[in-house]
Amino acid sequence: MTEFATRILKADRRALARAITLVESTRPDHREQATELLAELAGHGRQALRIGLSGTPGVGKSTFIESFGIMLAEAGLKIAVLAVDPSSARTGGSILGDKTRVERLSRHAGAFIRPSPSQSHLGGVARRTREAVALCEAAGFDVVLIETVGVGQSETVVAELSDVFVLLLAPAGGDELQGVKRGIMEAADLIVVNKADGDLKATATRTCADYAGALRLLRKRPQDAPGFPKAITASALHEQGLSDVWEQIRSLASWRKENGHWDGRREEQARHWFTEEVKQALLAGLETPAARALMARTAEEVASGQVAPGAAARALVAALPGLPESAPESLDVSPKSA
Amino acid sequence: MTEFATRILKADRRALARAITLVESTRPDHREQATELLAELAGHGRQALRIGLSGTPGVGKSTFIESFGIMLAEAGLKIAVLAVDPSSARTGGSILGDKTRVERLSRHAGAFIRPSPSQSHLGGVARRTREAVALCEAAGFDVVLIETVGVGQSETVVAELSDVFVLLLAPAGGDELQGVKRGIMEAADLIVVNKADGDLKATATRTCADYAGALRLLRKRPQDAPGFPKAITASALHEQGLSDVWEQIRSLASWRKENGHWDGRREEQARHWFTEEVKQALLAGLETPAARALMARTAEEVASGQVAPGAAARALVAALPGLPESAPESLDVSPKSA
Repeated sequence: MTEFATRILKADRRALARAITLVESTRPDHREQATELLAELAGHGRQALRIGLSGTPGVGKSTFIESFGIMLAEAGLKIAVLAVDPSSARTGGSILGDKTRVERLSRHAGAFIRPSPSQSHLGGVARRTREAVALCEAAGFDVVLIETVGVGQSETVVAELSDVFVLLLAPAGGDELQGVKRGIMEAADLIVVNKADGDLKATATRTCADYAGALRLLRKRPQDAPGFPKAITASALHEQGLSDVWEQIRSLASWRKENGHWDGRREEQARHWFTEEVKQALLAGLETPAARALMARTAEEVASGQVAPGAAARALVAALPGLPESAPESLDVSPKSA
Repeated sequence: MTEFATRILKADRRALARAITLVESTRPDHREQATELLAELAGHGRQALRIGLSGTPGVGKSTFIESFGIMLAEAGLKIAVLAVDPSSARTGGSILGDKTRVERLSRHAGAFIRPSPSQSHLGGVARRTREAVALCEAAGFDVVLIETVGVGQSETVVAELSDVFVLLLAPAGGDELQGVKRGIMEAADLIVVNKADGDLKATATRTCADYAGALRLLRKRPQDAPGFPKAITASALHEQGLSDVWEQIRSLASWRKENGHWDGRREEQARHWFTEEVKQALLAGLETPAARALMARTAEEVASGQVAPGAAARALVAALPGLPESAPESLDVSPKSA
C-alpha cells in the first residue's frame, strides 16, 4: 500500500483532492497512476450512501444542496458533493462550477465539495465521477451527493452511479409534466417538488399529486420498496421538508439493504462500468500517435473510393497490436486473389 | 476478380440479392466473405445518385416511393430502393417491410426493392445499408433511394449515406412544426409537403410556406446551392409535383458536382464510416467465445468489489490479443507493489 492510498484511507482532504485531480487528468501517465491508486484502494469495504440528484436549471438545486448538505453535516455526517456536468465547459450550468453558490456548505468542516471539471465529453466525465465517488468512499464519507444538471444523458450516468436517485422538480402546471423525459422519470426513486412555500405552496402540492399519479403508472421495479417511487414536497429556501427527504432516502436505502437490492444494484452497476471501461480501453488503442497517423492515411485511401471501409478497417485493426513507434506508410488492403 | 463480383458488375439481379443477403448476415464467415467481396468491388468508379428519404408514419411515404419510383423507372432509369429501419423487427413500421405496399414498383423491370432486414440494432443496420448501397452502385443503378421511418437516430444514418436528403412531411397546423427534430431539419436538402390535394391542398401550401420560413432561419451550409434547402408541395396520390421533386434533386446534385461538394461530401462520409468500422472491428474482439468467457468471469470479480473496474478492464484488454482458444481462468489484476 502506497503512502498516497494510506492518506486517503485516513480521510486526508488534501490527498483526496489531489487524487481527484489525478483521476480527472487525461494524460496517459496520470491515467496509469490513477488506475493503480484505485486498484490499491479496492476492497477497503467502506460504503457511502450515494445519492444521485438531478434537476433542470431554475429548480433551486443550489439552495437545496446547501440546505440539505448543512442539515446532514450538522447531524455529524460527513458529506461529499460531486458534479456530473458535461455542459459546464460551455454554459457554466452546474451550480458547482461556482462554489460561492453553496458557500455556507463549502465552509462546513463535515463537507467536501468538488466542482465539475472543465471537460465536456460525457464518457470522460462519467469515468471521472465514478472514480471520484470511489475515492470519497475510501476516504470514509457517509454520504456522497452526485449532482447533475439535466442535460443530455447525464442523468442516466448519475442514475448508474447512485444508490438512490432523487429528481428535484419545480411547481408547475399540469401541461409541463410531460417536459420530464420518460427515462428519467423511470429512474427516479424519489421526486421532490421544491419551492413549496409562499405563493407557490398550493401549486407545489398539486404538482406533487400529479407526479405521484404519473409514478403510479410506471411499471413496478424489484428494487422499489413499498410506496416507492414516491413524490413529496419541500422548501429548500425555508428549510422545510428536508428531514422528510432524508428519512425517505434512509428508509428506502435500509429496505434495499435488507432485501438484497443494495448489493444487487451495486454489482449491476459495477458490471456496467466494467463493460464501459473495457470498451474505452480498447478504443484507446486508436489514440496513440502511430495509430492516429496510420488511421488518417488509411482514411484518405478510403475517401478516394479505391478501398472499401470495411476491409480497410479490418486491416488497420489487425495491424494495431504490433504497431511500432512509427507507423507503416500504408496498409495492404488489396483484395485477396480468388 | 471472382465470378460473384463479376456477376454483380454485370447487373445480375440474383447475384445482387444474394450479395445483400451476405452483407446482412452476422455470421463471422459471411462477414469475412462480404468484406472480401466489397474489397473486390471497390474502385469500379460507378456512382448512383443516392437519395435519402425520411418521413414519419402516415405521411404517405409508400405512395410517394411507388409514384416517384415508377416515374423514374418509366423514364428509363434503374432505381433501387433500400430501407433503414431499426424498428422494423418490433413495429413493422417500414413500408418496405411489406413489398405489397409498393406493388406496382416492385413489378417494374427497372426497379429493385429490398425490405429492411429483421435486425433491430442500429449499428448493424447502418453498416448493412451502407454496404447494400455500395453493391447497388456496383450493379450500375442510376438512383438508390434509401428510405427510413423517423425513429431514433435512423435519419442521421440515412443523411450520412445519401448525396441528397429529402424530408417528406404532411400538411399540418403551425404548432406541429416543432415536432420535426432540429437535427433532421438541419440535415434536409429538400422538404416535400405531401398530400397537397383535395381538402388538404390549402393547408399543404401554408405548411410549405411555414417550413420554407423555418429553413431560412437555419445557418447556410457550404453545400447549399442558391435557394437550397427549400420546401415544395406534391401529391404522390395524384402523381402531381413529382417531376418538380426530381428536377430539384437533379439541379442540386449538378450544382454540387460542379462546385466540388459532391465528391467532398462522399469523401467526408467515407471517412466517417471508416472510423465507425474501425471502432466496430476493435469491439468485435470482445465477441469471441474466449473473450466473452473471460469478460464474464472478470465482471464477477469487479461486481464483488475486490477489483477496480479500470484496472480489470486494462488487464483484460492487454490479455485479448494473445487469447488462446480457451481463456485463462482469471486475470492477474492485483495492484503492483509500490
